[in-house]
Amino acid sequence: MVTVPPLSPTERSRVRRHRDRQRSDRAELHAVLDEALVAHLGRVVDGEPVVLPTLHVRVGETLYLHGSSGAASLRGDEPVCVTVTLLDGLVYARRWFTQSANYRSAVVRGHARPVTDPDEAVVALRALVTHVAPGQEEHAEPPSRKELAATGLIAVALDEASVKTRSGPPGDGDDVAAGDHRWAGVVHLETRVTGVTTCPALPADTPVPAHVPTG
Amino acid sequence: MVTVPPLSPTERSRVRRHRDRQRSDRAELHAVLDEALVAHLGRVVDGEPVVLPTLHVRVGETLYLHGSSGAASLRGDEPVCVTVTLLDGLVYARRWFTQSANYRSAVVRGHARPVTDPDEAVVALRALVTHVAPGQEEHAEPPSRKELAATGLIAVALDEASVKTRSGPPGDGDDVAAGDHRWAGVVHLETRVTGVTTCPALPADTPVPAHVPTG
Repeated sequence: MVTVPPLSPTERSRVRRHRDRQRSDRAELHAVLDEALVAHLGRVVDGEPVVLPTLHVRVGETLYLHGSSGAASLRGDEPVCVTVTLLDGLVYARRWFTQSANYRSAVVRGHARPVTDPDEAVVALRALVTHVAPGQEEHAEPPSRKELAATGLIAVALDEASVKTRSGPPGDGDDVAAGDHRWAGVVHLETRVTGVTTCPALPADTPVPAHVPTG
Repeated sequence: MVTVPPLSPTERSRVRRHRDRQRSDRAELHAVLDEALVAHLGRVVDGEPVVLPTLHVRVGETLYLHGSSGAASLRGDEPVCVTVTLLDGLVYARRWFTQSANYRSAVVRGHARPVTDPDEAVVALRALVTHVAPGQEEHAEPPSRKELAATGLIAVALDEASVKTRSGPPGDGDDVAAGDHRWAGVVHLETRVTGVTTCPALPADTPVPAHVPTG
């Protein structure tokens, strides 16, 4: 077992609402980042916020973002916020007011570091492929030098981060004792593989390798 | 059929990379916003970006955000960016470089308008409940005046928005003609209901109403 340091949220990264939903466990931060397939990268452009989706992967205490979605244009040391959300369920409450969602989210604040070292870029890109498509890092071709240069990865240190979660039943359970017997509960959600489509450039009977989930 | 005006992205909301992935169809913007269950709200706080997840709903050409996750603290007319992403699949390519994801995303840029009119707030909150839990708006109790005041909805006009999508097979199909016959394709993803848990404050045999999806 690896002992991980606790998260050390600064004053500004404290969870302000529903503090009971904050988790100060670095392992939980890792788990949320590792399970999520999409991150939302926030930047400030001309004084205004811009949020774009991107692929990400965690390697140790560094978060890498794929250089698509504008990430490639990030200036070195530019402040960023990377947020990842897993929606676990919808909370059907007795009141509109207590309607909610069960989720786990991680908010990472830091500064963008463009990855310029080719060795680091290969490690990060391999991790990224492994993260979104486990096994594909062996099946597919590593990047050429030209491809590597065109990838534009950025790194963000996991120094300042917070995790917030909600789980469990609706918050208005006391209404039952007060005589409200209408149904309430949680509808559980999951992202699932529903099937595979083989690339049409290939013969249709090309076998799907064992590492590819088929649903 | 309703004719909708085309999106009119300003210079700054143009899609810069992969312009072929931009869609200038307002109906597609609506479809992405209406299908997504979670939005990511970007703000600028002390000059730095902050991105938080929130529930949202579209009503006509207005996007409403639930006043949780810090949205309640938004200043009137504060610039915001609201981004919604639907992950449709993972693209297993022949090369790390062409590894990708199929998705539909909408990026809305505008200014936050706190909803202060109680009539508008009720309409927006009903729409929000209907969006995440269809049928629950009738089953559950509308808000008291006190609950309504505590909800803190914000509105963003859908004046400046862009939609970007990727679909279809890996982009490296030409590699097949070049002699690379290893498998590549798309793994399709879907968010699905996997089950329901009745609120433990209720008798366990309380029937689940017909409007609640059970998986």
